[in-house]
Amino acid sequence: MSHTCLHERASKEEIEKGLKLQPKFDENGLIPCITTDVHTNEILMFAWMNKESLENTIATGKVTYFSRSRQKLWVKGESSGQVQWVKELRTDCDQDVILVKVDMGENGASCHNGYRSCFYRKFDENSKGLIFDGGDPLFDPDEVYKK
Amino acid sequence: MSHTCLHERASKEEIEKGLKLQPKFDENGLIPCITTDVHTNEILMFAWMNKESLENTIATGKVTYFSRSRQKLWVKGESSGQVQWVKELRTDCDQDVILVKVDMGENGASCHNGYRSCFYRKFDENSKGLIFDGGDPLFDPDEVYKK
Repeated sequence: MSHTCLHERASKEEIEKGLKLQPKFDENGLIPCITTDVHTNEILMFAWMNKESLENTIATGKVTYFSRSRQKLWVKGESSGQVQWVKELRTDCDQDVILVKVDMGENGASCHNGYRSCFYRKFDENSKGLIFDGGDPLFDPDEVYKK
Repeated sequence: MSHTCLHERASKEEIEKGLKLQPKFDENGLIPCITTDVHTNEILMFAWMNKESLENTIATGKVTYFSRSRQKLWVKGESSGQVQWVKELRTDCDQDVILVKVDMGENGASCHNGYRSCFYRKFDENSKGLIFDGGDPLFDPDEVYKK
Protein backbone atom coordinates (compact mmCIF):
# COMPACT_ATOMS: atom_id res chain seq x y z
CA MET A 1 0.00 0.00 0.00
CA SER A 2 1.63 3.20 -1.14
CA HIS A 3 -0.49 5.63 0.88
CA THR A 4 -0.78 4.88 4.56
CA CYS A 5 -2.61 6.60 7.39
CA LEU A 6 -0.07 5.23 9.84
CA HIS A 7 2.75 7.45 11.01
CA GLU A 8 6.02 6.85 12.80
CA ARG A 9 5.90 7.30 16.57
CA ALA A 10 7.01 10.74 17.67
CA SER A 11 7.07 12.38 21.12
CA LYS A 12 4.87 11.32 24.04
CA GLU A 13 3.06 14.65 23.71
CA GLU A 14 2.36 14.02 20.03
CA ILE A 15 1.24 10.43 20.64
CA GLU A 16 -1.13 11.25 23.50
CA LYS A 17 -2.43 14.67 22.45
CA GLY A 18 -1.84 14.71 18.72
CA LEU A 19 -4.02 14.03 15.71
CA LYS A 20 -1.84 11.53 13.88
CA LEU A 21 -2.45 7.81 14.05
CA GLN A 22 0.88 6.50 15.35
CA PRO A 23 0.21 2.95 16.48
CA LYS A 24 2.77 1.09 18.52
CA PHE A 25 3.39 -2.43 17.34
CA ASP A 26 5.03 -4.73 19.86
CA GLU A 27 8.23 -6.73 19.45
CA ASN A 28 6.30 -9.18 17.26
CA GLY A 29 4.93 -6.38 15.10
CA LEU A 30 1.45 -6.71 16.62
CA ILE A 31 -1.06 -4.42 18.30
CA PRO A 32 -4.05 -5.63 20.38
CA CYS A 33 -7.49 -4.99 18.89
CA ILE A 34 -10.76 -4.87 20.82
CA THR A 35 -13.86 -5.30 18.68
CA THR A 36 -17.28 -4.12 19.84
CA ASP A 37 -20.80 -3.99 18.46
CA VAL A 38 -21.40 -0.41 17.30
CA HIS A 39 -25.06 -0.57 18.32
CA THR A 40 -24.77 -2.01 21.83
CA ASN A 41 -21.09 -1.49 22.74
CA GLU A 42 -20.97 -5.20 23.59
CA ILE A 43 -17.47 -6.60 23.35
CA LEU A 44 -17.46 -9.16 20.58
CA MET A 45 -13.87 -10.32 20.50
CA PHE A 46 -10.24 -9.52 21.04
CA ALA A 47 -7.49 -10.29 18.54
CA TRP A 48 -4.27 -8.89 17.11
CA MET A 49 -3.34 -6.80 14.10
CA ASN A 50 -0.08 -6.16 12.35
CA LYS A 51 0.62 -3.05 10.27
CA GLU A 52 -0.73 -4.60 7.10
CA SER A 53 -3.95 -5.77 8.74
CA LEU A 54 -4.58 -2.35 10.25
CA GLU A 55 -3.98 -0.68 6.89
CA ASN A 56 -6.25 -3.24 5.22
CA THR A 57 -8.96 -2.66 7.81
CA ILE A 58 -8.90 1.08 7.14
CA ALA A 59 -8.68 0.69 3.37
CA THR A 60 -11.43 -1.92 2.94
CA GLY A 61 -13.75 -1.22 5.87
CA LYS A 62 -13.65 -4.91 6.77
CA VAL A 63 -11.86 -5.87 9.95
CA THR A 64 -8.65 -7.70 9.16
CA TYR A 65 -6.65 -9.27 11.95
CA PHE A 66 -3.34 -11.11 12.02
CA SER A 67 -3.70 -14.72 13.08
CA ARG A 68 -0.90 -15.61 15.46
CA SER A 69 -1.56 -19.35 15.18
CA ARG A 70 -1.60 -19.33 11.38
CA GLN A 71 0.88 -16.44 11.07
CA LYS A 72 -1.09 -14.79 8.32
CA LEU A 73 -3.51 -12.01 7.53
CA TRP A 74 -7.02 -12.92 8.58
CA VAL A 75 -9.92 -11.09 6.95
CA LYS A 76 -12.67 -11.81 9.46
CA GLY A 77 -15.45 -13.75 7.79
CA GLU A 78 -13.43 -15.17 4.92
CA SER A 79 -14.15 -18.71 6.15
CA SER A 80 -17.24 -18.21 8.31
CA GLY A 81 -18.99 -15.49 6.30
CA GLN A 82 -19.12 -13.43 9.51
CA VAL A 83 -17.72 -10.19 8.13
CA GLN A 84 -17.19 -7.29 10.54
CA TRP A 85 -17.91 -3.94 8.88
CA VAL A 86 -16.00 -1.08 10.48
CA LYS A 87 -18.17 1.77 11.71
CA GLU A 88 -15.64 3.48 13.97
CA LEU A 89 -11.96 3.04 14.72
CA ARG A 90 -10.24 4.37 17.84
CA THR A 91 -6.94 4.18 19.61
CA ASP A 92 -6.03 4.77 23.24
CA CYS A 93 -3.94 7.44 24.94
CA ASP A 94 -0.56 5.90 24.22
CA GLN A 95 -1.72 4.39 20.93
CA ASP A 96 -0.80 0.82 21.72
CA VAL A 97 -4.34 -0.58 21.39
CA ILE A 98 -6.92 -0.39 18.59
CA LEU A 99 -10.68 -0.35 19.19
CA VAL A 100 -13.03 -1.06 16.29
CA LYS A 101 -16.78 -0.73 16.51
CA VAL A 102 -18.44 -2.93 13.92
CA ASP A 103 -21.72 -3.88 12.36
CA MET A 104 -22.16 -7.62 11.82
CA GLY A 105 -25.90 -7.59 11.34
CA GLU A 106 -28.45 -8.71 13.87
CA ASN A 107 -27.51 -12.38 13.70
CA GLY A 108 -23.78 -11.97 13.29
CA ALA A 109 -21.54 -14.12 15.45
CA SER A 110 -17.93 -13.27 16.19
CA CYS A 111 -16.86 -16.38 18.04
CA HIS A 112 -15.56 -19.50 16.28
CA ASN A 113 -17.80 -21.44 18.69
CA GLY A 114 -20.85 -19.77 17.14
CA TYR A 115 -21.61 -17.30 19.90
CA ARG A 116 -22.26 -13.64 19.21
CA SER A 117 -19.38 -12.69 21.51
CA CYS A 118 -16.32 -14.66 22.55
CA PHE A 119 -17.02 -13.54 26.12
CA TYR A 120 -19.94 -15.95 26.63
CA ARG A 121 -19.00 -16.93 30.19
CA LYS A 122 -18.77 -14.90 33.34
CA PHE A 123 -17.14 -15.59 36.66
CA ASP A 124 -19.53 -16.54 39.43
CA GLU A 125 -18.60 -15.51 42.96
CA ASN A 126 -20.57 -18.35 44.55
CA SER A 127 -19.21 -21.28 42.61
CA LYS A 128 -15.85 -19.58 42.01
CA GLY A 129 -16.20 -20.82 38.47
CA LEU A 130 -17.66 -19.77 35.15
CA ILE A 131 -21.27 -19.73 34.05
CA PHE A 132 -22.60 -19.48 30.51
CA ASP A 133 -24.70 -16.44 29.76
CA GLY A 134 -23.87 -15.47 26.19
CA GLY A 135 -27.06 -16.81 24.63
CA ASP A 136 -27.26 -19.74 22.24
CA PRO A 137 -24.78 -20.26 19.40
CA LEU A 138 -25.94 -18.53 16.21
CA PHE A 139 -24.29 -21.01 13.92
CA ASP A 140 -22.97 -24.55 14.09
CA PRO A 141 -19.16 -24.45 13.95
CA ASP A 142 -18.96 -28.04 12.64
CA GLU A 143 -21.09 -27.00 9.71
CA VAL A 144 -19.39 -23.67 8.99
CA TYR A 145 -15.78 -24.76 9.31
CA LYS A 146 -16.20 -28.27 7.87
CA LYS A 147 -14.07 -27.52 4.87
CA MET B 1 -2.88 -16.43 48.49
CA SER B 2 -3.54 -20.00 49.52
CA HIS B 3 -6.92 -20.43 47.87
CA THR B 4 -7.11 -19.51 44.25
CA CYS B 5 -9.93 -19.56 41.72
CA LEU B 6 -7.41 -20.02 38.94
CA HIS B 7 -6.82 -23.48 37.54
CA GLU B 8 -4.15 -25.03 35.38
CA ARG B 9 -4.95 -25.15 31.68
CA ALA B 10 -6.45 -28.46 30.61
CA SER B 11 -7.83 -29.62 27.25
CA LYS B 12 -9.16 -27.26 24.54
CA GLU B 13 -12.63 -28.68 25.21
CA GLU B 14 -12.34 -27.90 28.92
CA ILE B 15 -10.95 -24.41 28.28
CA GLU B 16 -13.60 -23.41 25.73
CA LYS B 17 -16.66 -25.24 27.06
CA GLY B 18 -15.83 -25.78 30.72
CA LEU B 19 -16.70 -23.98 33.93
CA LYS B 20 -13.24 -23.55 35.41
CA LEU B 21 -11.33 -20.31 35.15
CA GLN B 22 -8.10 -21.38 33.41
CA PRO B 23 -6.48 -18.16 32.23
CA LYS B 24 -3.58 -18.30 29.82
CA PHE B 25 -0.71 -16.05 30.79
CA ASP B 26 1.72 -15.23 28.00
CA GLU B 27 5.48 -15.77 27.96
CA ASN B 28 5.84 -12.75 30.27
CA GLY B 29 3.23 -14.10 32.67
CA LEU B 30 0.64 -11.57 31.54
CA ILE B 31 -2.92 -11.63 30.25
CA PRO B 32 -4.66 -8.70 28.48
CA CYS B 33 -7.51 -7.07 30.38
CA ILE B 34 -10.29 -4.98 28.84
CA THR B 35 -12.13 -2.75 31.29
CA THR B 36 -15.61 -1.42 30.57
CA ASP B 37 -18.21 0.68 32.33
CA VAL B 38 -20.83 -1.72 33.70
CA HIS B 39 -23.61 0.80 33.10
CA THR B 40 -22.87 1.85 29.52
CA ASN B 41 -20.51 -0.87 28.23
CA GLU B 42 -18.14 1.94 27.23
CA ILE B 43 -14.56 0.75 27.01
CA LEU B 44 -12.60 2.59 29.64
CA MET B 45 -9.12 1.18 29.27
CA PHE B 46 -6.93 -1.75 28.37
CA ALA B 47 -4.08 -3.02 30.51
CA TRP B 48 -2.37 -6.21 31.62
CA MET B 49 -2.67 -8.53 34.60
CA ASN B 50 -0.38 -11.19 35.99
CA LYS B 51 -1.61 -14.10 38.09
CA GLU B 52 -1.29 -12.17 41.32
CA SER B 53 -3.18 -9.15 40.02
CA LEU B 54 -6.02 -11.31 38.73
CA GLU B 55 -6.25 -13.11 42.06
CA ASN B 56 -6.14 -9.77 43.86
CA THR B 57 -8.87 -8.36 41.62
CA ILE B 58 -11.16 -11.29 42.44
CA ALA B 59 -10.30 -11.29 46.14
CA THR B 60 -10.67 -7.54 46.78
CA GLY B 61 -13.23 -6.47 44.16
CA LYS B 62 -10.87 -3.66 43.11
CA VAL B 63 -9.25 -3.95 39.70
CA THR B 64 -5.56 -4.64 40.05
CA TYR B 65 -3.33 -4.59 36.99
CA PHE B 66 0.33 -5.30 36.48
CA SER B 67 2.26 -2.26 35.31
CA ARG B 68 4.69 -3.27 32.60
CA SER B 69 6.60 0.02 32.80
CA ARG B 70 6.99 -0.12 36.58
CA GLN B 71 7.07 -3.94 36.72
CA LYS B 72 4.81 -4.06 39.75
CA LEU B 73 1.29 -4.69 40.92
CA TRP B 74 -0.92 -1.69 40.23
CA VAL B 75 -4.10 -1.31 42.24
CA LYS B 76 -6.01 1.10 40.01
CA GLY B 77 -6.70 4.30 41.94
CA GLU B 78 -3.91 3.97 44.49
CA SER B 79 -2.34 7.21 43.19
CA SER B 80 -5.26 8.90 41.42
CA GLY B 81 -8.11 7.85 43.72
CA GLN B 82 -9.89 6.49 40.64
CA VAL B 83 -10.74 3.05 41.99
CA GLN B 84 -12.47 0.58 39.67
CA TRP B 85 -14.98 -1.60 41.52
CA VAL B 86 -15.53 -4.94 39.85
CA LYS B 87 -19.15 -5.70 38.97
CA GLU B 88 -18.57 -8.53 36.54
CA LEU B 89 -15.59 -10.52 35.33
CA ARG B 90 -15.48 -12.52 32.11
CA THR B 91 -13.07 -14.41 29.98
CA ASP B 92 -13.16 -15.30 26.29
CA CYS B 93 -13.47 -18.62 24.46
CA ASP B 94 -9.83 -19.63 24.74
CA GLN B 95 -9.36 -17.86 28.07
CA ASP B 96 -6.46 -15.68 27.05
CA VAL B 97 -8.22 -12.36 27.71
CA ILE B 98 -9.99 -10.96 30.80
CA LEU B 99 -12.94 -8.55 30.62
CA VAL B 100 -13.94 -6.63 33.75
CA LYS B 101 -17.03 -4.47 33.97
CA VAL B 102 -16.59 -1.84 36.62
CA ASP B 103 -18.29 0.95 38.50
CA MET B 104 -16.16 4.08 38.92
CA GLY B 105 -18.98 6.43 39.84
CA GLU B 106 -20.47 9.03 37.55
CA ASN B 107 -17.38 11.23 37.47
CA GLY B 108 -14.78 8.51 37.48
CA ALA B 109 -11.94 8.83 34.99
CA SER B 110 -9.82 5.89 33.88
CA CYS B 111 -7.22 7.65 31.80
CA HIS B 112 -4.05 9.13 33.27
CA ASN B 113 -4.77 12.14 31.06
CA GLY B 114 -7.96 12.76 33.01
CA TYR B 115 -10.46 11.47 30.46
CA ARG B 116 -13.21 9.04 31.36
CA SER B 117 -11.89 6.57 28.80
CA CYS B 118 -8.42 6.16 27.34
CA PHE B 119 -10.08 5.90 23.91
CA TYR B 120 -10.81 9.62 23.63
CA ARG B 121 -9.87 9.93 19.95
CA LYS B 122 -11.35 8.36 16.88
CA PHE B 123 -10.05 7.97 13.39
CA ASP B 124 -11.57 10.35 10.86
CA GLU B 125 -11.92 9.12 7.28
CA ASN B 126 -11.77 12.61 5.83
CA SER B 127 -8.65 13.91 7.48
CA LYS B 128 -7.10 10.43 7.75
CA GLY B 129 -6.17 11.46 11.25
CA LEU B 130 -7.58 11.46 14.77
CA ILE B 131 -10.23 13.70 16.27
CA PHE B 132 -11.00 14.20 19.94
CA ASP B 133 -14.48 13.18 21.05
CA GLY B 134 -14.06 11.78 24.55
CA GLY B 135 -15.44 14.78 26.40
CA ASP B 136 -13.45 17.06 28.67
CA PRO B 137 -10.90 15.75 31.18
CA LEU B 138 -12.54 15.03 34.54
CA PHE B 139 -9.43 15.79 36.53
CA ASP B 140 -6.19 17.67 36.07
CA PRO B 141 -3.35 15.14 35.76
CA ASP B 142 -0.75 17.69 36.90
CA GLU B 143 -2.71 18.14 40.11
CA VAL B 144 -3.47 14.48 40.75
CA TYR B 145 -0.06 13.02 40.00
CA LYS B 146 2.04 15.91 41.33
CA LYS B 147 3.53 13.80 44.09
